[in-house]
Amino acid sequence: MANKYHARIYVTLRSSVLDPAGVAVESGIKQMGYQGVTGVRIGKYIELELTATDESDAKTQLDQICDRLLANPVIENYCFELTQLATNH
Amino acid sequence: MANKYHARIYVTLRSSVLDPAGVAVESGIKQMGYQGVTGVRIGKYIELELTATDESDAKTQLDQICDRLLANPVIENYCFELTQLATNH
Repeated sequence: MANKYHARIYVTLRSSVLDPAGVAVESGIKQMGYQGVTGVRIGKYIELELTATDESDAKTQLDQICDRLLANPVIENYCFELTQLATNH
Repeated sequence: MANKYHARIYVTLRSSVLDPAGVAVESGIKQMGYQGVTGVRIGKYIELELTATDESDAKTQLDQICDRLLANPVIENYCFELTQLATNH
């Protein structure tokens, strides 16, 4: 039996790591006239579908994929949300 | 009176637009041995704080910032979540 899951993955820079792109975007936003904007941080948002035997298997697969490919654990954190789509018997 | 809000912004490619980076990541994931992964789409995730008179003002500001700077409305969609942080009288 295999289940299909939809995953929403968020990869963000650790708070101790400088984010030059965020600083540049914040400067751009302020130049557009929005003075009240602060603390801009830019991360990645990844959507994918995966097949797994159960939710625990899906989480294990996603943890490995994030650690090895999607995020750099030295400077980035990640988290994800799983939604079950369908069950194939 | 000014309120402070935390915003989480998701910028994604429209579903009709090809995502070559997503295709490359999917190929990488499959080469790592996770054959059940499909439909990888890569977007941007932006966090910021902003000051606004009320939630409606915050939404208006964010819509303008997203339309003019953070997203390209021709090929991208965006959505955001607002959380109120504090009220300064």
